[in-house]
Amino acid sequence: METHEGVCGVAERQVQMPEGAAFKIGLFADLHFGEDAWTEWGPRQDLNSINVMNSVLQHENPDLVIYLGDVITANNIMIANASLYWDQAISPVRNRGIPWVSVFGNHDDAAFQWPLEWFSPPGIPPIHCPQTTTSYSGDDECSFKGTGRLELMSNDMKHNGSFSSYGPRNLWPSVSNYVIQVSSPHYPPSPVAFLYFLDSGGGSYPELISNDQVKWFRQKAEEINPDSRVPEIVFWHIPSTAYKVVAPKFDIRKPCVGSINKESVAAQEVETGIMDLLLNRTSVKAIFVGHNHGLDWCCPYNKLWLCYARHTGYGGYGDWPRGARILQINETPFSLHSWIRMEDGQVHSEVIL
Amino acid sequence: METHEGVCGVAERQVQMPEGAAFKIGLFADLHFGEDAWTEWGPRQDLNSINVMNSVLQHENPDLVIYLGDVITANNIMIANASLYWDQAISPVRNRGIPWVSVFGNHDDAAFQWPLEWFSPPGIPPIHCPQTTTSYSGDDECSFKGTGRLELMSNDMKHNGSFSSYGPRNLWPSVSNYVIQVSSPHYPPSPVAFLYFLDSGGGSYPELISNDQVKWFRQKAEEINPDSRVPEIVFWHIPSTAYKVVAPKFDIRKPCVGSINKESVAAQEVETGIMDLLLNRTSVKAIFVGHNHGLDWCCPYNKLWLCYARHTGYGGYGDWPRGARILQINETPFSLHSWIRMEDGQVHSEVIL
Repeated sequence: METHEGVCGVAERQVQMPEGAAFKIGLFADLHFGEDAWTEWGPRQDLNSINVMNSVLQHENPDLVIYLGDVITANNIMIANASLYWDQAISPVRNRGIPWVSVFGNHDDAAFQWPLEWFSPPGIPPIHCPQTTTSYSGDDECSFKGTGRLELMSNDMKHNGSFSSYGPRNLWPSVSNYVIQVSSPHYPPSPVAFLYFLDSGGGSYPELISNDQVKWFRQKAEEINPDSRVPEIVFWHIPSTAYKVVAPKFDIRKPCVGSINKESVAAQEVETGIMDLLLNRTSVKAIFVGHNHGLDWCCPYNKLWLCYARHTGYGGYGDWPRGARILQINETPFSLHSWIRMEDGQVHSEVIL
Repeated sequence: METHEGVCGVAERQVQMPEGAAFKIGLFADLHFGEDAWTEWGPRQDLNSINVMNSVLQHENPDLVIYLGDVITANNIMIANASLYWDQAISPVRNRGIPWVSVFGNHDDAAFQWPLEWFSPPGIPPIHCPQTTTSYSGDDECSFKGTGRLELMSNDMKHNGSFSSYGPRNLWPSVSNYVIQVSSPHYPPSPVAFLYFLDSGGGSYPELISNDQVKWFRQKAEEINPDSRVPEIVFWHIPSTAYKVVAPKFDIRKPCVGSINKESVAAQEVETGIMDLLLNRTSVKAIFVGHNHGLDWCCPYNKLWLCYARHTGYGGYGDWPRGARILQINETPFSLHSWIRMEDGQVHSEVIL
């Protein structure tokens, strides 16, 4: 695995396929670490989520893990440094030496939201600001305005094994925008697939993929894949409105594949052209999102597949059994398989994309 | 005017009545400085608001001004230091050497909210983060998470003429909780009235007055006014639900006094006992709030008066003509008069409370 500086000054990250085997990716979506730290419930959910990840990693041993947003529930985190919870969430992958990348969801950099029930009489908020002095010392020690995307990402990238990036500076405060090349094991290595990651906003920022991000995608793709010869796979957190168009009405039937269809698609607030771009690129095979914990289907949309991951974390709403979507890339001939691996080891919803 | 440290380590602030005259207070409510800085509309509204304040100060020449919350619209402010707008809002009072106090509203420490219309195709957000380096430098330069209450208040208190306080540390992050004594002009000075200020939350914090604030009020009142001999007047930003009980249904008729009744009372989210306390203290005469720009009435509620200020700023919703509520305290015999002074100099809604 290597990191090169691309011609535009953006890090061009490469992960290499194993010799004689497929390349396997695990999607860990909506872990929601750091909830309710003031009750036993919170730390217990985080422990449960670690168990889910360990089970999936044990069964699948992926070559790469994608943290698909809502790694933490920052609106529940009453300390200044939310990266402490982020680091807990990436620890099972990191401990095994598996490389990972992260994209942001809508909960990752949210400000702390004071639970109203703390204020019911005779409730007293359990948080009091530090009593070290009687006057203001200059630090806003008790505002809990959320740990910024840049700080979270900077912390993620510090670790060996992180292939995350905070993306081009001209897209900030939209941060997790970058591309990873999956390379053949032969020499010289040639690209087998490009994995694109986009920050779909939320938290401190609207829930959208901006026009500037679309422009960046177009320019980057023209630069590194000008003839659309190499397949492209796209990952972000909040579904686009196209997911509403293809969503199964009741049961999940062919051509859709999946196991739960328990809620409505919660789409981005504004669309500024990313779907037009992706539909017009013949090389784009599929989009993967998280966000809706009660949906895990893949459905075709013109020549694309629109897929949900599977709710991996015990944090966040919903009691559906936890699992993780797996992707498998074969080089010759190119193919993209996917299935869902559950916490208990079962496999379902296999599909060729 | 003097500042003493009270027995509990809380600053006991005193303002002295002028010799042989009443004590006059101007309420500047909902100025909402700092809106739409990316259009001409925004700076023009702030200029208009300065004109309203200057007109009221010219006509009334108050002894004290109370900034009754929503001094700024922080959710519109795309710079890290929102105190720059706060300082614009207090400048007309400061320039005339009139003392002032400030309490927080729900907009003062809010995080920046990215306007969705910036993202409509082919819209491009006008904010880009500083391009000085290609990597993250450690400062969250483009997150705009709002300037904290403590930082805003610390900035306010720095100025000569500010009688504001960030209140007891054990109430933080609820900040603007303090009391001011209006003293007689005789020697030794004796209290003529106590003005209580409370932080009714909002922005980074729920919209409420907590149980701890109620306890603080009770203890403070028992300490400085144990026999309830001295009249007490109370100020905060967001009305309590009691305002809903007394609100005029259609026209404003006796016993209510006022001129506009254009919307429903928007009350606090949770109530934890402040109204019970105030109703049971015979010394409490009236409560004054802002928040609802389309309401300017005073109505009796048991032995209290519940009053709205008047929308003073051109920022914020609503096109009703701007003005300011004036309070006048007479010492012997004690009396509390109020009226509304409009931007154009007219006076209406006179009432004896």
